[in-house]
Amino acid sequence: MTTHPVKPPIGPATRLCMSLAARPGQFGSRFHNRLYERLGLDFIYKAFTTTDLPAALGGIRALGIRGCAVSMPFKEAVIPLIDRLEGSAAAIDSVNTIVNDDGRLTGYNTDYSAVAQLLDRAGIAPETPFLLRGSGGMAKAVVAALRDRGHRQGTIIARNRATGQALADLYGFIWTPELQTQTAPLIVNVTPLGMKGPEAAQLAFPEAAIVAAETVFDVVALPSDTPLMRAAGALGKTCISGAEVAVLQALEQFVLYTGIRPDPELVDEATAFARAT
Amino acid sequence: MTTHPVKPPIGPATRLCMSLAARPGQFGSRFHNRLYERLGLDFIYKAFTTTDLPAALGGIRALGIRGCAVSMPFKEAVIPLIDRLEGSAAAIDSVNTIVNDDGRLTGYNTDYSAVAQLLDRAGIAPETPFLLRGSGGMAKAVVAALRDRGHRQGTIIARNRATGQALADLYGFIWTPELQTQTAPLIVNVTPLGMKGPEAAQLAFPEAAIVAAETVFDVVALPSDTPLMRAAGALGKTCISGAEVAVLQALEQFVLYTGIRPDPELVDEATAFARAT
Repeated sequence: MTTHPVKPPIGPATRLCMSLAARPGQFGSRFHNRLYERLGLDFIYKAFTTTDLPAALGGIRALGIRGCAVSMPFKEAVIPLIDRLEGSAAAIDSVNTIVNDDGRLTGYNTDYSAVAQLLDRAGIAPETPFLLRGSGGMAKAVVAALRDRGHRQGTIIARNRATGQALADLYGFIWTPELQTQTAPLIVNVTPLGMKGPEAAQLAFPEAAIVAAETVFDVVALPSDTPLMRAAGALGKTCISGAEVAVLQALEQFVLYTGIRPDPELVDEATAFARAT
Repeated sequence: MTTHPVKPPIGPATRLCMSLAARPGQFGSRFHNRLYERLGLDFIYKAFTTTDLPAALGGIRALGIRGCAVSMPFKEAVIPLIDRLEGSAAAIDSVNTIVNDDGRLTGYNTDYSAVAQLLDRAGIAPETPFLLRGSGGMAKAVVAALRDRGHRQGTIIARNRATGQALADLYGFIWTPELQTQTAPLIVNVTPLGMKGPEAAQLAFPEAAIVAAETVFDVVALPSDTPLMRAAGALGKTCISGAEVAVLQALEQFVLYTGIRPDPELVDEATAFARAT
């Protein structure tokens, strides 16, 4: 797409897409609105928070809001409030995207598909053993993506026995509460370690595990240059960052909402725009 | 205000204002969004329709939507769904504007205040007798505004006895089901006669009543050049059109939502922009 049609002014026909998160960020609004602008699509995107999830979902139906990104802490709580779960979201039991077709709400998980695509792009062989830290909603999406790519040897590291063991058992992996001396060619962080806030300075894996890995994957996106990513980069490892997951999952949402898949160059431009804040 | 600050891009802090109508028009979106743009306000405005009013109102609360214009057929139905009625809306029992202050919804009627202002601007003496056709929600706002300005002699013309007589009785005016030979210096149409649709060609008052009047007021806004306005104009009468009501009531909504009253020149510019479709 090399043409830049003019986006119509906001009117009755304009479709609204939105997000629901405890702490809404800037990225989604800037990324989606930039693509609408560049493609001349009659859409707008607005980030919201809420303290009343059922009423927010009721509003999405009643106002015909086209789509909704779902972030922490709503990814599981929305499930009883929607009509249908698409395959991956059903398997993971976690929804990060809702599509509204004439009042019928379908839940998707674009984190799952984004993670699978990034592992493919990085050329990670499906038999590669992995160590993965975390057992929350996002960890479920990443573990499911690994399993569905064909990975069969993996260890889930999670202090929370209930969620950690359940996740490992579900997909046939090993659970351990603490990392000891294990190493693997692929290590993945799906905890808030390294995220802006009280755990910003924490390294999600010990130095020895990073040294022993070939590929280091950190889903933390804010910021994406976590201590883990910086250490892995310094050691010359193949790195997959949370920023890449954030872009790719947002792009899949864009495609679900609009039915249009933008050219890669346009996605890169919108990504650069969205990050330039 | 002569500066044109830059409107921030849509983000988590952006406030959404909206409208609910059976058939949403273009005017509100274009008028409000133009003023936001010119004043650099971090707001957006989007028109919606709904088939589930309680859920739509629940969504306004849950998503923190700042304000909502309410049009036909929702002006009375919203009353049990909000928290509080401001004076004029309570008296008229008709809400055309909802303001959301941290989840507390207050109903206003800016049609009422717009009509009162337009009668003042046109220099209509408060003792002027009037003939008014109609008995719906908008007629209630116009009759209340006339009464509150001090008009004491008036006839409500409405085929529907239940609503017509009730409206006349409420404010101490006369009710009649059909206009005979009555004339008055002020005649007001608050029915759909002359509106785009099956009644577009109909003249809301007989020629003799128009000739006998000094001021002719038609609240029909789509289009505002109704057969009644054209006839009154040709006869050199003072005319007040539905387009003027539409702008002034939208301006009062803008002030309620943003706390900012734009300069008259800016209002004129935004009005011209909103109409240029």
